[in-house]
Amino acid sequence: MTTLSPYDSMSPVTQAAYRAKAAAADLAPLPRAIKDDALLAIADALEVRTAEIVEANAEDVARARENGTSEAIVDRLTLTPERVRAIASDVRDVAGLPDPVGEVVRGSTLPNGIDLRQVRVPLGVVGIIYEARPNVTVDAAALCLKSGNAVLLRGSSSAHASNRALVRVIRDAVGGAGLPADAVQLVPGESRESVRELMRARGLVDVLIPRGGASLIRTVVTESTVPVIETGTGNCHVYVDAQADLDTAVEILINSKAHRVSVCNAAETLLVHQDIAAEFLPRALDALAEAGVTVHADERVLAYAADSKATVVEATPEDWETEYLSHDIAAAVVDSLDRAVEHIRLWTSGHTEAIVTTSQQAARRFTQLVDSTTVAVNASTRFTDGGQFGFGAEIGISTQKLHARGPMGLPELTSTKYIVTGDGHVRR
Amino acid sequence: MTTLSPYDSMSPVTQAAYRAKAAAADLAPLPRAIKDDALLAIADALEVRTAEIVEANAEDVARARENGTSEAIVDRLTLTPERVRAIASDVRDVAGLPDPVGEVVRGSTLPNGIDLRQVRVPLGVVGIIYEARPNVTVDAAALCLKSGNAVLLRGSSSAHASNRALVRVIRDAVGGAGLPADAVQLVPGESRESVRELMRARGLVDVLIPRGGASLIRTVVTESTVPVIETGTGNCHVYVDAQADLDTAVEILINSKAHRVSVCNAAETLLVHQDIAAEFLPRALDALAEAGVTVHADERVLAYAADSKATVVEATPEDWETEYLSHDIAAAVVDSLDRAVEHIRLWTSGHTEAIVTTSQQAARRFTQLVDSTTVAVNASTRFTDGGQFGFGAEIGISTQKLHARGPMGLPELTSTKYIVTGDGHVRR
Repeated sequence: MTTLSPYDSMSPVTQAAYRAKAAAADLAPLPRAIKDDALLAIADALEVRTAEIVEANAEDVARARENGTSEAIVDRLTLTPERVRAIASDVRDVAGLPDPVGEVVRGSTLPNGIDLRQVRVPLGVVGIIYEARPNVTVDAAALCLKSGNAVLLRGSSSAHASNRALVRVIRDAVGGAGLPADAVQLVPGESRESVRELMRARGLVDVLIPRGGASLIRTVVTESTVPVIETGTGNCHVYVDAQADLDTAVEILINSKAHRVSVCNAAETLLVHQDIAAEFLPRALDALAEAGVTVHADERVLAYAADSKATVVEATPEDWETEYLSHDIAAAVVDSLDRAVEHIRLWTSGHTEAIVTTSQQAARRFTQLVDSTTVAVNASTRFTDGGQFGFGAEIGISTQKLHARGPMGLPELTSTKYIVTGDGHVRR
Repeated sequence: MTTLSPYDSMSPVTQAAYRAKAAAADLAPLPRAIKDDALLAIADALEVRTAEIVEANAEDVARARENGTSEAIVDRLTLTPERVRAIASDVRDVAGLPDPVGEVVRGSTLPNGIDLRQVRVPLGVVGIIYEARPNVTVDAAALCLKSGNAVLLRGSSSAHASNRALVRVIRDAVGGAGLPADAVQLVPGESRESVRELMRARGLVDVLIPRGGASLIRTVVTESTVPVIETGTGNCHVYVDAQADLDTAVEILINSKAHRVSVCNAAETLLVHQDIAAEFLPRALDALAEAGVTVHADERVLAYAADSKATVVEATPEDWETEYLSHDIAAAVVDSLDRAVEHIRLWTSGHTEAIVTTSQQAARRFTQLVDSTTVAVNASTRFTDGGQFGFGAEIGISTQKLHARGPMGLPELTSTKYIVTGDGHVRR
């Protein structure tokens, strides 16, 4: 008679999730020093085994080129020895960050003498679904380990060889440091069915974080029974108020739009108060032209376009909801600050909105009424970022309201539990 | 030609959700004083219009009796003038609690001079799906209003007349206080389809909180695309360690199990260390017998049953996962603290687990390894409660790890946003 393990009847994805859950239970009580040692071992191993990683990555890059992938995406996919060193250095930075686990979030002695403490604990098993950036594999593993979580990584099939090599190196280092290697796993299988299983592994996986394009995120949000943290989509607005310093307004507009166009905190729509439009728009349109930005303009902005160097096209309603991620911006003139807020509330993805104003009253009203992860006053939308906010690292930018909102650092990868300590206390 | 409003093509549930979203935008920036005035107006109106409420409730009660509903459930459903007064008094208590909105959760000046503040904001629109307790209608409305949220209430059809009367009174009071009456709405329609629409209203409803039995909660968790906070199910454990004061252990066991059996923080399983079983179990079984509790015992507990007054039946594997909510308890002897932890990790719903011990080392290990919303040391499981924890009020007890865990007070009904203030700061 052969003995069947209960694992034998499970799919590979479910098996991986069970192993992750067991690893998470081992990780949760570990003190910081042990986790940091494992992170430093990972960084060392990445450097020692760079050749193996770069070689595996070359397979992915060759296949991408064969498939006619754009050079921009090939560049994101490519790992060089320098880039591997930079990734290793990021892992060392994570080791240097404070450990969120064990932090007492609140605590008090209750009137009956019971001591109550709310303490940070790891979430447990974190699933990350992401696109073709192999550095995410290492970043996510490092942040999850530091916060005491096991991680299930589901990268793009176009980076499969790179991810396999990176996870092999990470697991060897984690195991060598005496931690369970199953704390870091690639989700087995490359089919859509294996993603679906991951999304249905409620009770095994504690949270799923999709990182990537809008359609990936929509699929995960709709189909997952595991709780999801929605990330990323950024239809960010810059609103130039009636009272605004024109130089500041131009500088913030150009920085928000053109500093880096492919990122979620880049501006996608400009709104201008009608009282400042005649002064501001000619300068803004010229500056956007210089930055190589095409303006998708409403009728009132179009009126200023003829005399400018700008490339201007007429806006359609879709422009107001588009995250271009390119050298394009939608632009409209609004009657008032409140109309700007209404426009934003109607069309925003809730990421970041900036106001440029010299009026304290306008700044206050805008920050009160706009309900996005981040509201910037006289600052570029580009500051919405874990690194810029001083979090030291970022697992993504949540655009939802539950659990975490805005840039997510290590504390956002934790939950809490209450510890109630008495001397035989019972309820009367 | 007749003009069609965009609302005309929507279902009644979607219309209600849109109106709630608009009301939420109006509520969000309101200062505490205005919200408190509305709450006090609700409390007054409940008292002035008690007769109307009690009369409507009588319809529900009569129908419940006709349908042969158990007297325990009829009692939960029944509103008397005294109970309405108590509900009004609870609303006044909520008005007296601090307003979580506007609290600066963290703030700092970044190295570049930008001021960063993370501020509490309302969630927006909160949906509550609950069973036949009309007091939840008022409690939930009061807590949501206080925290600046609009609420969509979906009660049991068996309390429909009561809920309609209560919501009519609340809406009149809210409107009379100058706030949008649509901040408090009953979900229209009594069909299952209307619940399904509520669960699919992602983008309009920000969070759903199901309060009720396990099957209701499972349905909402599985079918909802709106983020859900799972509440309530409590398969709580009391573990008596090798070193424990026997009087304390018996007192905590009996209080955890029998103080009130129908609640989620009542104990459902007793685990006893083998080294103390011979001393403790005879006393425990007699005490359970006196409290009228039937013991579902494993083999090792059964060995002590013959000489006791206890009603004992043999446990089946289902007993380990059952939330009895009755005068029943499962009981087992374990070889060690670590075996107790393993048992708990395997079977718990993650609500509350208590250890009774005189050993500091055991207390520390148990609180580190057990991963439930609340771990109690030498205290009854019955303390896991917003009121007991000093939160002043409770919208439910979350048994999930995301967003909120354990008793949820007003801060758990909020999200945050970041406010970034510069002097024309741009990223270099």
